[in-house]
Amino acid sequence: MKNIAVILSGCGVYDGAEIHEAVLTLLAIEQAGAKYRCFAPNINQHHVINHVTGEVMVAEQRNVLVESARIARGDVEDLTEFYIDEFDALIVPGGFGAAKNLSDFAINGEDIRVNEQVLAVCQAFVKANKPAGYMCIAPVMIPLIYGEGAQATIGQDIAIAQSLTNIGLAHRACAVDDIVVDEARKLVSTPAYMLATSLVEAASGINKLVEKVIKMAN
Amino acid sequence: MKNIAVILSGCGVYDGAEIHEAVLTLLAIEQAGAKYRCFAPNINQHHVINHVTGEVMVAEQRNVLVESARIARGDVEDLTEFYIDEFDALIVPGGFGAAKNLSDFAINGEDIRVNEQVLAVCQAFVKANKPAGYMCIAPVMIPLIYGEGAQATIGQDIAIAQSLTNIGLAHRACAVDDIVVDEARKLVSTPAYMLATSLVEAASGINKLVEKVIKMAN
Repeated sequence: MKNIAVILSGCGVYDGAEIHEAVLTLLAIEQAGAKYRCFAPNINQHHVINHVTGEVMVAEQRNVLVESARIARGDVEDLTEFYIDEFDALIVPGGFGAAKNLSDFAINGEDIRVNEQVLAVCQAFVKANKPAGYMCIAPVMIPLIYGEGAQATIGQDIAIAQSLTNIGLAHRACAVDDIVVDEARKLVSTPAYMLATSLVEAASGINKLVEKVIKMAN
Repeated sequence: MKNIAVILSGCGVYDGAEIHEAVLTLLAIEQAGAKYRCFAPNINQHHVINHVTGEVMVAEQRNVLVESARIARGDVEDLTEFYIDEFDALIVPGGFGAAKNLSDFAINGEDIRVNEQVLAVCQAFVKANKPAGYMCIAPVMIPLIYGEGAQATIGQDIAIAQSLTNIGLAHRACAVDDIVVDEARKLVSTPAYMLATSLVEAASGINKLVEKVIKMAN
């Protein structure tokens, strides 16, 4: 049974991992006959957003690992405990957490930096020639993980695509129910909630991504 | 297209709505060709649990409506804005939030009280003869909503089942992939994570519950 590492970035679309994407990913992994273990960095969130008003809750501070545990029903591990030999593939759901906590793309754009622990784990899959899937906004980290020329999608957003092209991504526009596959790099991406307007739409691309990543792991 | 009200109780199994159950419910509603609107009470959570350690975070205070918005991607409404005429059916996912925020069963057991707004909305479906589905621990509220003799399940937990029998529930033991249906009351329940050990198991009962509730709404 293939073992898939899933990196979460908190719990909630505006300041953490997108909950629907994360749950649909875990469901699809199980449905494909594989298993998963969830990881997150043990760091403070960039900020906390009130998901009713969209405003920053300035008095609040939350931890990415602790909030990610909500999605994982307590079963989440610190990224420092990750060993590449235990895993066949990696999947990173989206949500602003990928651009605010795992990286700082939401703040610094093209000057993006990826959290050191996150970068080390993601690059471990590259070095081991093991497949990985990135969805929604998470592909903003791909240029720093894979270097120049990697093919991936963040959907149809022209401004973000241009920023990523400027730092070396070979961006491919993609429909919500489709995936972009860089066969040479064993790298899969899908727009998910960069384009989805419903759970069924999000699931259509996420299911394809999970299936392809697991197929590549075989 | 049938319109289903979903009542959330926060965001996280130990102090709010069970995230997998909530997301699987919303997905199943869409897949059945119906639509949903999410509601939550605008009240403070009973407490906040660190989902890594299981301990109470004593310095934290969170709002049920605000945290529920994470699951609903911001699209959640205050229970005070609910109008029964706009809906065909109700579904209440589980998680300890149903026993700590929507009601106080986790604290007071058989002396359970249900939040007044929650009780009013749930009873509106009873009075209108419209179907409802309760999953996981949420059926603890059924004796106060439906009165004596209503048939429902919280799975196989003998102690909780006895407590609920003492206050008038006609408890039926139920497997994780099955539902209990009280046809006269148009009331459906399933154990979900009272018994589930995976998303696929949880989905097996939840999908049946959602299908049955929507069928009863036709």
